[in-house]
Amino acid sequence: MAGLVDRTFKLTIAYDGTDFSGWQIQPQKPTIQGMLERALVKLTRQRVHVTGSGRTDAGVHALAQVASLRTPNWRASASDLVKAMNVNLPPTIVVTDAVDAPDDFHAIRDAIGKRYRYQLQVGGQRNVFDYRYRWHLYHDIDLDAVTEAAGRFVGKHDFASFQAVGSPRKTTTRHVKVCEIIREPSMNGGGNLFSIEIEADGFLYNMVRNIVGTLMEVGKGKYPPQHIDNVIEAANRDAAGPTAPPQALFLKRVDYLPFT
Amino acid sequence: MAGLVDRTFKLTIAYDGTDFSGWQIQPQKPTIQGMLERALVKLTRQRVHVTGSGRTDAGVHALAQVASLRTPNWRASASDLVKAMNVNLPPTIVVTDAVDAPDDFHAIRDAIGKRYRYQLQVGGQRNVFDYRYRWHLYHDIDLDAVTEAAGRFVGKHDFASFQAVGSPRKTTTRHVKVCEIIREPSMNGGGNLFSIEIEADGFLYNMVRNIVGTLMEVGKGKYPPQHIDNVIEAANRDAAGPTAPPQALFLKRVDYLPFT
Repeated sequence: MAGLVDRTFKLTIAYDGTDFSGWQIQPQKPTIQGMLERALVKLTRQRVHVTGSGRTDAGVHALAQVASLRTPNWRASASDLVKAMNVNLPPTIVVTDAVDAPDDFHAIRDAIGKRYRYQLQVGGQRNVFDYRYRWHLYHDIDLDAVTEAAGRFVGKHDFASFQAVGSPRKTTTRHVKVCEIIREPSMNGGGNLFSIEIEADGFLYNMVRNIVGTLMEVGKGKYPPQHIDNVIEAANRDAAGPTAPPQALFLKRVDYLPFT
Repeated sequence: MAGLVDRTFKLTIAYDGTDFSGWQIQPQKPTIQGMLERALVKLTRQRVHVTGSGRTDAGVHALAQVASLRTPNWRASASDLVKAMNVNLPPTIVVTDAVDAPDDFHAIRDAIGKRYRYQLQVGGQRNVFDYRYRWHLYHDIDLDAVTEAAGRFVGKHDFASFQAVGSPRKTTTRHVKVCEIIREPSMNGGGNLFSIEIEADGFLYNMVRNIVGTLMEVGKGKYPPQHIDNVIEAANRDAAGPTAPPQALFLKRVDYLPFT
C-alpha cells in the first residue's frame, strides 16, 4: 500500500440499540462499532478504526451519531461508501451520510455540542410497540414542576452530581444550552407522552439518564423544582435521583464547525 | 373446587411478535399463548387453556387479537383480570380488554371476520426503527397497478392459490370484503410508505402474506393487474407470488356478533 494516501471520512449513523451491547467494540458481543469495522474490513481489506463522537450504552439508540475514520483503501466517492457500507450492515444500523473530511478531523475531539432525546409515557396503557423506545411511568407526574426544574439545568454548571460514579473526567463542568420538555400527541392507549431534550457542549457519563431520573423525582413530588439548584451545588452523585433506563434514550445530533 | 361454576372471558390482546415464536404454545420456546397461560396459572392456580381466534406466526404482531378462556377460579371483575394479567405478562404483550362472555363463547368458532394490516416501504433510506414492523422494498413499485390488482381479490373466491402448501382446510373459499392500499405520510428517510389492509370472513394459512407477495409482483411489472384473476382461477399455490416476510404483518381486528 506504499504511496497511497489516507483519506478521512465523516460518517453519520442511525441505529436501533436494542440488540447491541452498546457502541464500543467488545469481544464476542454485537456492538455498533464492531459492526461498522467489520463492514469496513470487507470493503477496504484492512482493519479500519472507527472513532465515534461518544459511546452509547446497551439499548441506547442514535438518530444521528457521528464517527470518523481514515483509510487509504477507498477510492470511490463518499456516497458510494454509504451504499457499500449499508449492504454490509445489519438492518438495525444505517449509514445515512458520509463526506470527505480534512485529514485532522476527529469525531470526539472536534465535537462542539450534542443533543439527546429521552422519551417518556406517564399513565395510560402499556404500548407493546413502544417498549424498546420509551420509559413508561405509572406514577402521576407533575409536568409543570418538571418543566420548571428542567430550566434550572440550563447554563454552565458543575454536573458532578449527574456523573456515573467511577468515571472521572478532567472537568465536570458542562454548558447546558437546552433542557426542554416536548409534549407529544397521545396515542390509542392514552397517557401523557413527552420527551426531554437536552443540548450541551458535552456530556458526562450517564448525565442525561441521571438528569431524567432526577427530574422524575421532582415530577413525583419528592422534592420541589428549586431543589435542583441544591443537587447541582452538592457536586455529589448521592444528591441526585436514580439513573433512568437506557432504552428510551436517543442520541439526536452531534454538532461540528463547518470544514474550512 | 366442587360447586364452583366456570366463567368464560373474552380477552383482547396486543403484542409485538418480534421476540416470540408465534402465538401457539411450544415447549422451550416463548410464545404468546404460553405467556398468557403462564400468567393465568399464577392467578387461578390451575391450568387454563387460552383459545386464540387464530394463530399468528413468529414475528407477526397483533393490535387486537381475541382469545377466550374458561375458569372457575377468577372471582373478581373482568377489568381486575386485565390488571392482574398485565402485571404477570412481559412488556411486549398487553391485555387491553376483558369481558364476561356467554358460556359457549369460543374465539375461533364465533369469529365472523378479521382484518389484517401489512406495512410496506418502497425506496428511500433504511429506517432502523421500522425494521421489525415494515417490509422495505428497493425495487420500484407501481402503486396504481397494485391498487387495481388489490381490488380483484374482493368478493367470494376460492383462495387455494394463496394457501400455504400442506395446510388443508375443509374449504378454501373465503369472502374478502376489503383489500385496500392505504398511503401513509413519508418520514425523514424518504421513500413511499403504505399499508395493505385486508378484511375477510376468514383467512387461509399465510393468505395475507401470499396476497401481498403476489401484489408486489404486479407492482414490479412482472404481470398486469388483471392477471390476479388467472391466479385465483388456477387454485394452485404455484400460480401466485412468493410469501411476504412476517414482521410487517399485524392482526388488526377480529369481529364477533354482539353477545345476546
